[in-house]
Amino acid sequence: MKILILGIDGYLGWSLANYFANEDCQIFGIDSFFRRKWVKDMGSISAIPIASMNSRIKAYEATYKKEMLFYKGDITNYEFLGSKIKEIQPDVIVHFAQCPSAPYSMISQSKSVWVQKNNLIGTLNLIYAAKEYAPDAHIIKLGTMGEYGTPNVDIPEGFFEIEYKGRKDTLPFPRQANSWYHLSKVHDSNNLQFACRNFGLRCTDIMQGVVFGFHGGPNYPAHRKLGTRLDFDQAFGTVINRFCCESIINHAITVYGDGTQIRSFLPLKDCMQCIKLVIQNPPEPRQYKVINQFANIHAINELASKVAGVCKLLSMEVKIVKMKNPRKEVEKHYYNPDNQNLKNLGYTPSSNFDSEIMELIESIKPYKKRIFEYSSVLNPTINW
Amino acid sequence: MKILILGIDGYLGWSLANYFANEDCQIFGIDSFFRRKWVKDMGSISAIPIASMNSRIKAYEATYKKEMLFYKGDITNYEFLGSKIKEIQPDVIVHFAQCPSAPYSMISQSKSVWVQKNNLIGTLNLIYAAKEYAPDAHIIKLGTMGEYGTPNVDIPEGFFEIEYKGRKDTLPFPRQANSWYHLSKVHDSNNLQFACRNFGLRCTDIMQGVVFGFHGGPNYPAHRKLGTRLDFDQAFGTVINRFCCESIINHAITVYGDGTQIRSFLPLKDCMQCIKLVIQNPPEPRQYKVINQFANIHAINELASKVAGVCKLLSMEVKIVKMKNPRKEVEKHYYNPDNQNLKNLGYTPSSNFDSEIMELIESIKPYKKRIFEYSSVLNPTINW
Repeated sequence: MKILILGIDGYLGWSLANYFANEDCQIFGIDSFFRRKWVKDMGSISAIPIASMNSRIKAYEATYKKEMLFYKGDITNYEFLGSKIKEIQPDVIVHFAQCPSAPYSMISQSKSVWVQKNNLIGTLNLIYAAKEYAPDAHIIKLGTMGEYGTPNVDIPEGFFEIEYKGRKDTLPFPRQANSWYHLSKVHDSNNLQFACRNFGLRCTDIMQGVVFGFHGGPNYPAHRKLGTRLDFDQAFGTVINRFCCESIINHAITVYGDGTQIRSFLPLKDCMQCIKLVIQNPPEPRQYKVINQFANIHAINELASKVAGVCKLLSMEVKIVKMKNPRKEVEKHYYNPDNQNLKNLGYTPSSNFDSEIMELIESIKPYKKRIFEYSSVLNPTINW
Repeated sequence: MKILILGIDGYLGWSLANYFANEDCQIFGIDSFFRRKWVKDMGSISAIPIASMNSRIKAYEATYKKEMLFYKGDITNYEFLGSKIKEIQPDVIVHFAQCPSAPYSMISQSKSVWVQKNNLIGTLNLIYAAKEYAPDAHIIKLGTMGEYGTPNVDIPEGFFEIEYKGRKDTLPFPRQANSWYHLSKVHDSNNLQFACRNFGLRCTDIMQGVVFGFHGGPNYPAHRKLGTRLDFDQAFGTVINRFCCESIINHAITVYGDGTQIRSFLPLKDCMQCIKLVIQNPPEPRQYKVINQFANIHAINELASKVAGVCKLLSMEVKIVKMKNPRKEVEKHYYNPDNQNLKNLGYTPSSNFDSEIMELIESIKPYKKRIFEYSSVLNPTINW
């Protein structure tokens, strides 16, 4: 099986390349190294140093005795993407090649336009390249649980059956996203849904919770250069990763607002396991299948307490501080999303986030000084 | 009152400038003349000749004794749009500056990307320019009834109250658009909804039916150079206008597929009347208000018969021919959209489409030869 990973140099992309290293498949990767640039734009670095792509590939091939074919390029360039998909003829295309940060998209007019344009055009190009050169490929696109917002009803997986004014239909579940980034994912979901219907493509659209942790799966850490990135700045550092980096440098754990906001979360290794299950269970041609991918839901306060609790076990004293929420978001709300689709495929969610958090803290411990040096990037200066 | 019309050179934009000529307001216009270029791309022309913008403005000022301030420019250029909104300080911004053709957007990968990029960036720029320089302005954005698709339940105006698994909420009504163009409108609707919530802007988002006819309102035809454009090619010619142009040159009226597809329609002068009502009834700050703007719903077959019937009255014999549908669309479906919001504002829908059709046929009669010369543009060669 040929798996093409778009955005292979990123947090999830590089983890997935490693996770599949011992599987019976060929791995192909495309990246333009934008993630490295964006984090640099934020004045930040990965908490755990990452190797260059050249070094990564050398380490990968030496460790796994398996070739990796990598192409540097930008998927918003259709000629580039089309020629690669034509050449590779992938069975599966995992689309991680997007700017994944809500705060980054909210910095300014130009960032807003850049993020939406980048994400939208990349996905449109992928749709046309697949239609033209690999119409049977299984497209796996990353959406986000944030597309749904926080409605006052249960959140199904993509679609719901409703009765309205005495008639019934199964309709896409309404999206109420809360940043230009999240909206770009909604746009892509809508575009892909149409592409399956009209062009006959097949797609699994993953509405993913917030991923945390450093250990992607069984192979890690085979080699230091095989580690993925771990961001902690206000734009690219997701909440649990950021809390852990704060803890390690004796910075207070900073909760935005009341901390009663509830979101869905999953450890990095669960994310890898889920994507493997998705790859093993492709949708039918013309099918646009949505899955909600998360292990559990938690209030931000609970996560702060979890991280502080793990720190205590490790004899680290950490304070939790509430700060003015830089984002306009509802802090008290109902939240009950479904994730039965993945469970039906065999996914057993990690119930123990504590051990994942401990593993993460152990991994970043050697880089305490490095994180401390860059600690100003933790401050939420982007208000929206 | 200062009204800024983005896309003032187009079918609706130029009609609106004329419709408001005798009102107590100042008219400002922006256009980049893209519509003229797109129709040229299709190898076509306006059935009724249109004047250059310079001639239009001269005729406008001479006829109405009223100044019109026009700026040539592209709203995807933020510096341009921002500086003009800062300078003008409009009370109302009517946003027509988009590529409005489904078939055009389906021609190719590059057209798909171009249309979505153009429409998305223009609206994002408008959002930021309004936030920065005219946060209290009433933004009137044109969406389309096509955003909703053809669900098996009634179509409300933007939002609906539902009960799902025992809980209630008012949610955006799901969109199921069927072309890259229609999807671009969905993206813009989602972006604007967020902009109202997060930036505190105020917006009326008009889900408009298919507009037809040539006479925008009471002022026309004060002067030949004040007429708006009237397209009939496969991409920019909307269905009734196209049927009338076919009839005038003794071409059969061409119905795509079975003709049982039901859509919503309104005459151009109803569109003008509705937009006036919308301008007179701005939403509250932070409010994102959706209205469905149409006079009536009809199956395509009914419209073909209507046009043929009017022709008969005018002693023109016209055949109706069904042809293979170039579009993948459901031909038999339920369709029951609501348009109560406009009725509540005082809108009385035109019940007599026949007289509108007759007026249109009379208007294009002098241009029979011109239309005949370009009749090849009627063929639907764009398949999707």
